[in-house]
Amino acid sequence: MSTAHPNHLFISSDDVEGTAVYDFQDNKIGQVDHLMINKITGHVHYAVLSFGGFLSFAHNHYPIPWQKLKFDTSLDGFRVDIGEAQLRDAPEFSDDSWSNRTWERNVHTHYEIPPYWLS
Amino acid sequence: MSTAHPNHLFISSDDVEGTAVYDFQDNKIGQVDHLMINKITGHVHYAVLSFGGFLSFAHNHYPIPWQKLKFDTSLDGFRVDIGEAQLRDAPEFSDDSWSNRTWERNVHTHYEIPPYWLS
Repeated sequence: MSTAHPNHLFISSDDVEGTAVYDFQDNKIGQVDHLMINKITGHVHYAVLSFGGFLSFAHNHYPIPWQKLKFDTSLDGFRVDIGEAQLRDAPEFSDDSWSNRTWERNVHTHYEIPPYWLS
Repeated sequence: MSTAHPNHLFISSDDVEGTAVYDFQDNKIGQVDHLMINKITGHVHYAVLSFGGFLSFAHNHYPIPWQKLKFDTSLDGFRVDIGEAQLRDAPEFSDDSWSNRTWERNVHTHYEIPPYWLS
């Protein structure tokens, strides 16, 4: 697994998918379901988390900006500095959100990440 | 599937993985096994193709620069303008290649893609 090589610059997509996600109190809150990639640039802009069986969320999938995902070798998983309340309060999401710049702006504002299209 | 939405800006990683790859003569030559992502920037720089059962290659996996992968809706798969000979002649690859800038440079030269770290 690439995640077993913390010194490597690269990580494999199949090592990211299915990997556990922990909150800042070391609680396992879910896992990475998949990544959303800009077709043209190849940039991963969102990790889509799933919480099935962990928390009683209204939705199955919650997209967060890629930058919120930090790999923690001691946990052998990702840690996100996002609380349950912040996830619950995230902008409403649907499949159409992927072509909705307003939704993207709201998500980045919500998670306090500068919009990638302005950088 | 995101690949069913050609008008979308984004594609899902799990729609890329396992998707068939065709050459420029519409021959199915393999599939996308996984993607290699820069951990810090979130940029997908390589798609790793597998050819098991399609061609008798010496190796199981062949990384190509992401830019070589073009989704073709008529094929419902990716098309690469790479011939069998070019794949066979690609720079030798191992797990250590992912932290080897010389290997990266050689791969980009081989496939005639400008190195991403110079752009």
